[in-house]
Amino acid sequence: MPKGQPEHVPEDGLTTRQRRHRPLVMVHTGPGKGKSTAAFGLATRGWSQGWDIGVFQFVKSAKWRIGEEKALRTLGESDEGGTVSWNKMGEGWSWIQRSGTEQDHAADAAEGWAQIKRDLAAETYRLYVLDEFTYPMKWGWVDVDDVVRTLRERPGTQHVVITGRDADERLREAADLVTEMGKEKHPMDAGQKGQRGIEW
Amino acid sequence: MPKGQPEHVPEDGLTTRQRRHRPLVMVHTGPGKGKSTAAFGLATRGWSQGWDIGVFQFVKSAKWRIGEEKALRTLGESDEGGTVSWNKMGEGWSWIQRSGTEQDHAADAAEGWAQIKRDLAAETYRLYVLDEFTYPMKWGWVDVDDVVRTLRERPGTQHVVITGRDADERLREAADLVTEMGKEKHPMDAGQKGQRGIEW
Repeated sequence: MPKGQPEHVPEDGLTTRQRRHRPLVMVHTGPGKGKSTAAFGLATRGWSQGWDIGVFQFVKSAKWRIGEEKALRTLGESDEGGTVSWNKMGEGWSWIQRSGTEQDHAADAAEGWAQIKRDLAAETYRLYVLDEFTYPMKWGWVDVDDVVRTLRERPGTQHVVITGRDADERLREAADLVTEMGKEKHPMDAGQKGQRGIEW
Repeated sequence: MPKGQPEHVPEDGLTTRQRRHRPLVMVHTGPGKGKSTAAFGLATRGWSQGWDIGVFQFVKSAKWRIGEEKALRTLGESDEGGTVSWNKMGEGWSWIQRSGTEQDHAADAAEGWAQIKRDLAAETYRLYVLDEFTYPMKWGWVDVDDVVRTLRERPGTQHVVITGRDADERLREAADLVTEMGKEKHPMDAGQKGQRGIEW
């Protein structure tokens, strides 16, 4: 993609340099493939800049994203870039102390978001990947207004990317960048299931 | 994204297993961001499966994709997955022996495609990332019919992903998966240029 020039310069009181390094909220939504992949691509580029990356996966699955997880963990341990912290709701957030084996997904999601709020306040990471985070918002497990307010008021230079279908309109408005992934043609339509290495 | 089930089973004489492991041609096109990022995500997942990856970048740029290049090279050298071969037209394909410093982009592109044909015939890689390869086709430097025929007749189980805007209709028809990246909202519209770690 050719690098563009802004069509106009806004009267926002910022210098070009300040505007260029403004921390971003990015939303990857829509019915098509590639929402999470694009977010992990961002994480990869951030890692290469030495950024510390915090990944939070909000939908439980044993198989999904294992390729990206293995890759980003390998990168985080390589001393070639930043660190990588990978947190999976499906395996229990590491900071939850819960007795027994009961699973309460709504409580898990709320606790995950509470941890992210603490990390944002402490400026723990430079880039946050909140994978499939639109779903707990859609299901009412996490309050959208609280998310928007927290993102708007976050300190420092922390980038946040949120993935998942059906992003709330308030979240879209609060975002600096919204990418809608469209679906055109898929092997599934020809009776083919997903395959290892391609889909996960 | 939830994992789907095929809506129907085609009468193509293949078993489910054969269909599942059918080698794919994938095209990431459209005006939006994320075409190359999605391709490098595929490469990352393939690497985690132990696949040997061949990347061919068809548009010269000193800055683009340096994050992905550093990451995939680091992964390829980690012994945790497959190998990674990264070829940049902008720096001269490594297999070109050319005198002096003259640059002929059309000849470079044709030679790059000739090498890919040799690699496909030899089954050198399990996944090929042909980044920005739609442009040499669009500009007439590489023959689209030759590309489609070569892809259709390639041996073994070799996946190919091609990125870039304005994919030719013949290429779209030959592909198993076409993802159209759409643009919804971008910081550029608010007068912000791309920034390191986010865009490249």
